[in-house]
Amino acid sequence: MVEEIAEGSWILLYIDRKRRKILRVSSKAKYSSDKGTIDLGGLIGSTYGVRVTTSIGAKAYIYKPTTCDLVYSVFSRPSQVIYPKDAGYAILMLDISPGKKILEIGVGSGVMTALIANLVRPEGRVYAYEIREDMAKIALENLRRIGMDRYVELKIRDAAQGVDEKDLDAAFIDIGDPWRVVDVVYNALKPGSPAAFFTPTFNQLLKLHTALIEHTGWGYIECVEILERPIELKENAVRPSTRMIAHTGFIVTAKKHLKDSSDKSIGD
Amino acid sequence: MVEEIAEGSWILLYIDRKRRKILRVSSKAKYSSDKGTIDLGGLIGSTYGVRVTTSIGAKAYIYKPTTCDLVYSVFSRPSQVIYPKDAGYAILMLDISPGKKILEIGVGSGVMTALIANLVRPEGRVYAYEIREDMAKIALENLRRIGMDRYVELKIRDAAQGVDEKDLDAAFIDIGDPWRVVDVVYNALKPGSPAAFFTPTFNQLLKLHTALIEHTGWGYIECVEILERPIELKENAVRPSTRMIAHTGFIVTAKKHLKDSSDKSIGD
Amino acid sequence: MVEEIAEGSWILLYIDRKRRKILRVSSKAKYSSDKGTIDLGGLIGSTYGVRVTTSIGAKAYIYKPTTCDLVYSVFSRPSQVIYPKDAGYAILMLDISPGKKILEIGVGSGVMTALIANLVRPEGRVYAYEIREDMAKIALENLRRIGMDRYVELKIRDAAQGVDEKDLDAAFIDIGDPWRVVDVVYNALKPGSPAAFFTPTFNQLLKLHTALIEHTGWGYIECVEILERPIELKENAVRPSTRMIAHTGFIVTAKKHLKDSSDKSIGD
Amino acid sequence: MVEEIAEGSWILLYIDRKRRKILRVSSKAKYSSDKGTIDLGGLIGSTYGVRVTTSIGAKAYIYKPTTCDLVYSVFSRPSQVIYPKDAGYAILMLDISPGKKILEIGVGSGVMTALIANLVRPEGRVYAYEIREDMAKIALENLRRIGMDRYVELKIRDAAQGVDEKDLDAAFIDIGDPWRVVDVVYNALKPGSPAAFFTPTFNQLLKLHTALIEHTGWGYIECVEILERPIELKENAVRPSTRMIAHTGFIVTAKKHLKDSSDKSIGD
Repeated sequence: MVEEIAEGSWILLYIDRKRRKILRVSSKAKYSSDKGTIDLGGLIGSTYGVRVTTSIGAKAYIYKPTTCDLVYSVFSRPSQVIYPKDAGYAILMLDISPGKKILEIGVGSGVMTALIANLVRPEGRVYAYEIREDMAKIALENLRRIGMDRYVELKIRDAAQGVDEKDLDAAFIDIGDPWRVVDVVYNALKPGSPAAFFTPTFNQLLKLHTALIEHTGWGYIECVEILERPIELKENAVRPSTRMIAHTGFIVTAKKHLKDSSDKSIGD
Repeated sequence: MVEEIAEGSWILLYIDRKRRKILRVSSKAKYSSDKGTIDLGGLIGSTYGVRVTTSIGAKAYIYKPTTCDLVYSVFSRPSQVIYPKDAGYAILMLDISPGKKILEIGVGSGVMTALIANLVRPEGRVYAYEIREDMAKIALENLRRIGMDRYVELKIRDAAQGVDEKDLDAAFIDIGDPWRVVDVVYNALKPGSPAAFFTPTFNQLLKLHTALIEHTGWGYIECVEILERPIELKENAVRPSTRMIAHTGFIVTAKKHLKDSSDKSIGD
Repeated sequence: MVEEIAEGSWILLYIDRKRRKILRVSSKAKYSSDKGTIDLGGLIGSTYGVRVTTSIGAKAYIYKPTTCDLVYSVFSRPSQVIYPKDAGYAILMLDISPGKKILEIGVGSGVMTALIANLVRPEGRVYAYEIREDMAKIALENLRRIGMDRYVELKIRDAAQGVDEKDLDAAFIDIGDPWRVVDVVYNALKPGSPAAFFTPTFNQLLKLHTALIEHTGWGYIECVEILERPIELKENAVRPSTRMIAHTGFIVTAKKHLKDSSDKSIGD
Repeated sequence: MVEEIAEGSWILLYIDRKRRKILRVSSKAKYSSDKGTIDLGGLIGSTYGVRVTTSIGAKAYIYKPTTCDLVYSVFSRPSQVIYPKDAGYAILMLDISPGKKILEIGVGSGVMTALIANLVRPEGRVYAYEIREDMAKIALENLRRIGMDRYVELKIRDAAQGVDEKDLDAAFIDIGDPWRVVDVVYNALKPGSPAAFFTPTFNQLLKLHTALIEHTGWGYIECVEILERPIELKENAVRPSTRMIAHTGFIVTAKKHLKDSSDKSIGD
């Protein structure tokens, strides 16, 4: 069934690459740019995908925003946020899927929190820890704006001091000193399950790697870097963009195994 | 609750980077490598994460495989398959999430089909079209092995001749001549919704781009290439790997808008 | 023997990454920044490598500029210029070396002209063609400033109409429509010798490739793209830079062979 | 003047991408592949660029090899060698040019030695240090084969114990523990002049960076990584190659300044 745009609906209004905006429809709201004005109230009752004309005759398209469109536009982002290239890869490595219970340490603006919540809902949960109260409040408000807060338990705490949950399905860690929580994450996870750590510098990577090795409860430790190269689609001049985001961080993945020295011996 | 390994459970057996294997547990099965033998039946009743010792004393860890672990190991893959770096990005761009109804054209071995099914289940569906009967059969058998077939409707057909569905939430297209299905995909999608096309060569990219422009029903057309750079985590010698997969394909995304010339005019 | 700084010497004055400048020393010149003033005349008679103190006590180092330091700082650059990553690779592929005679089509600001001249001098020559008179004048003035004009013959002409030289050792072509000069370059080169074409878009690359194939006088046709990833060397935070130049152009190399149908037949 | 192929000339024989070979012409030599045999003696007196036919009718082209063609084919290479992408960049950063005197530490197979020698000849020199006698002998033999040994002084020595030269124009260092020679390189260079260090791992990079900072005689310290992405030029299927060399090493550049505490004070 095709959805109608209603009071309070989010829309992605697109005039051209430089004039695109996520907006919330209300009967009285207008949108203005150098390409003219659009009466957003007039969209109520239309379907997504409709084309409208601005006050000065420019064409605009009204798309349905994806979760990514929303989190990267609507969210207040005082801190550095994860990019889709990294989030998408981590989501697959962690096997995020409906019903899963996920630990997140380092919420920041809540971008990854929202992306995970969107995939585990309605039964799953994100248990999200943020050390900074100001960031946690921003994240919570962000999640509320797009209705994702109901799938998230957000706690203001230094996760290095321990987390409340046990037997979680996966963990995503994005903090400056991830080596401090290696044991906490270990204790929160179901045995056999994965964690992903996101970390930007060579120095942090070396220190995290050492911590994972020395902990002895982690195996299958791998690291990748994901790069996104934008391609410019100009007519008769398709080419990689001149500039790109060259580095965000390294993604280190590992799986928890039991440390108990009472190994089973099942060789024949 | 911690899961126990049972008859028929999939496990990821990990000795070291070169000796890792996805296996199905049964009371009579054994696994042998140059590092010795393991009696898989002995794992029944254990939890994931357990450490076992092979017949010659090597240590092996038993992890719970992720969906990615499964599809890239268990699936027969006679054709080129999508990589997690590309799949994860496309999943976010298409807003794949629980309950969504997704069109897939070009199933191949079913890797992307499984990754999408895992995220839309249990209510959502993948409507998957494959022109080659032999590939479709392989894909279906692959999906069955990991229990994902119940979320997929697989049809053996040249999708360029039309698909049966309407008002789908998103579409993923991975075929050699994607320009042939631009209109079919358009007709199958809800207005305002996204499609992602995966295509390897410059020539195909230019041709697809032209087809999308000329169709006039697509907007917000973007293209990226995603690169995955593996980092070698050797003690005291952490470095990017010497070799990497340098190119898989370009991901072109676009959103459907209405072509109807009877535009609304809502400027004030 | 250690060189002394003299009237007219070029220096690279370096305070920190954001405050570095190529300057020409004269008895009356001063250099001022927010870090204070330096009397350049006071450097006359010093050696390169000296450390000086500005009027407000900041430290500055006086290095000897390399040819690259000079061309990327001193040259007026109204047009896009080649980067060292591409120039260095092309120089090796073309076997630029002392005494060689090199064809250049598309001089622009003269950056590549200068880099080649610096390597073929004093006996070699660059025969450089530029279609735009304004650019040619800028290039000539640029070359004069660093004393490289004496190794260059610069001609204002559309090279597609033919060049004056024959039996040149190599050719470098950096123009928007390189397919137009494929035959001209062919005629100017010694048989068996290399050409390198620099071209930014997929469309141009496909068109150039077709032109080289159809000409039938070119073989060993290869293409690469060179990427330079800057690494930030901050204490305890070494990492790839957040942003980089992601694309400049493709480098297509080919070698000339004789088209004469009277092949030698030397099989035994 | 067009060169003739003579007894002892190097040629690049090219049948197709998989059948190309650098060969030395002699009156009695033959070249055989699955595409037939060629009598190399029959080439004497021909010009480069000639097309010949093999015994079974395949076409082969005879190009003049570049220095790169030679060093990567003719040289025995028991050790990892530098790639053109890195060599070309370093050559520009070091301002290698005719007449310069260059320090090289870590000769290996002599690839970089040859590339530098080719650019500083006939007046310039490479002062090349190699700790391993076996490697030094291989390098010397390699250099002799292409006539570059006359521009090189090769010494078998641990350069960390000091080098014989002073006031050199630039230095290139490619050894596993470059921090050991930071002071030796410093003492060998003219003040104000550049050094380039090539190093593969994150660990080495961090250690080298620390050594350069702590030495206090180095400034303008920069680091880049150069990537070469091969593009496949197949008809109607141009695309980046599936695989590439993803990492060779980091290039760290720095310039020498005087450490003397008796700074000039030239502020006004």
